[in-house]
Amino acid sequence: MINRTAFFISDGTGITAGALGKLLEHFPSTHFKQVRLPFTNTLEKIRLAQEAIALATEEDGGRPVVIMTLGDIALRNSLKQCNAYFIDLFNTFIDPLGLELDQKPLTGAGIAHSVMGSSYNERMEAINFTLNHDDGMTNNGLEEAEVILVGVSRCGKTPTSVYLAMQFGVKAANYPLIPEDFERGTLPAVLHKHLGKIFGLTIKAERLHAVRNERRAGSFYASLDNCRQEIATAENLMRTAGITWADSTSRSVEELSAIILEKMRHPAISK
Amino acid sequence: MINRTAFFISDGTGITAGALGKLLEHFPSTHFKQVRLPFTNTLEKIRLAQEAIALATEEDGGRPVVIMTLGDIALRNSLKQCNAYFIDLFNTFIDPLGLELDQKPLTGAGIAHSVMGSSYNERMEAINFTLNHDDGMTNNGLEEAEVILVGVSRCGKTPTSVYLAMQFGVKAANYPLIPEDFERGTLPAVLHKHLGKIFGLTIKAERLHAVRNERRAGSFYASLDNCRQEIATAENLMRTAGITWADSTSRSVEELSAIILEKMRHPAISK
Repeated sequence: MINRTAFFISDGTGITAGALGKLLEHFPSTHFKQVRLPFTNTLEKIRLAQEAIALATEEDGGRPVVIMTLGDIALRNSLKQCNAYFIDLFNTFIDPLGLELDQKPLTGAGIAHSVMGSSYNERMEAINFTLNHDDGMTNNGLEEAEVILVGVSRCGKTPTSVYLAMQFGVKAANYPLIPEDFERGTLPAVLHKHLGKIFGLTIKAERLHAVRNERRAGSFYASLDNCRQEIATAENLMRTAGITWADSTSRSVEELSAIILEKMRHPAISK
Repeated sequence: MINRTAFFISDGTGITAGALGKLLEHFPSTHFKQVRLPFTNTLEKIRLAQEAIALATEEDGGRPVVIMTLGDIALRNSLKQCNAYFIDLFNTFIDPLGLELDQKPLTGAGIAHSVMGSSYNERMEAINFTLNHDDGMTNNGLEEAEVILVGVSRCGKTPTSVYLAMQFGVKAANYPLIPEDFERGTLPAVLHKHLGKIFGLTIKAERLHAVRNERRAGSFYASLDNCRQEIATAENLMRTAGITWADSTSRSVEELSAIILEKMRHPAISK
């Protein structure tokens, strides 16, 4: 395993540069220590960044990868006066895209300009909706939900709902399947009229057992036998109701969200 | 205002490519319609993408911007056989970074490989913690909190907490400042021993009035006078307690989170 430090250096929040951290996952035999330096907007801060870069080079025995968004050309050139592998989003993306669009790019941090836009408000509204409709908390306003996730307790419904809301502005309710539903053998009555927007999550019994055991060690609820039983019954119930589902065991919330949006052909995919 | 379509085409979830959508905000005089095409992993799906690109060119009167991550070289080259402005993350980032690291990049979607990693579990744990400690819901486990946000009701504490948890794996509790606190003139007693991790949010009275009015139109709670009064008292209280605060009125949750992490010098900035 090789060690390298990855710096994300930005004159703003560093959110865009930071998102590119995912690209580092294409190199699993390198261990990246990730360092974020937001609001690097003065020469003094550039100097501090350069010191940190020099120190990391010494510690790792290899030069750092620097992913940077700096609008100011003087700051940009100044930072590059040190030994690192630079990925400069202005040079590679923003300036060339400006030529394509025949427009001069804003040089400040881009994101601040969209705060009050409708999509931002939509996201905030979706988060509030999702938190208010977590874990079957209320049946009021389910008509407004764009997606309703169902599945056994602790199979990943909440983080997936929150991600859908935060990232895509999707109003995502979630509803646990519980022993009463299994005995009755049907979905909760309140969900019957919303079949078109229900998506199921399932999980491997061993994983559910481990997750539940962290909370309620040694309980019947957490036992491997009960987990197996609940999952089998829930999957049967979903199959009967014709609900599409995905296995959350080895998928991130990002992947689950993308699968759900594609399946629901949700307009968040295109907006 | 010029219209252009921005396609995000990926063989995986498209999360990384999608994050680059923020770069488009550097061009405020172009209106971008954003279209995500995740799981584009067959020649048939490439053909569908090309049709969508051709249609968009016709509708917009200008060629689309295509931000793409396709690991497979045949799919990559095939997609490029149409008229668009291509930003190819493999060509520009991943392949050159592989030369720097002297490693062959994984060609599949990167993100799937990190699902079960410790940082993923930390994020999930942080989300659960944050939801359980939303709106002063419980005082149990506040020692575990890494950040505690305070401020008047509806000033943005919840979405900011959720973003800190989701994006950075930070356990963020939040606590509303309410009339009892204002009368007493001090923070709730339970917070006294956690001063070092408290961060304040404030908001402009006009904005708070508008936000509260959406929920409780015409109430005393939502009235501009009461909003002004609450905000002034809350700011006084935070000033007396020596709490740093930020104004959420014209900042996104992304910006607020970056400000909070920098102020708290939280290790999430470097991990």
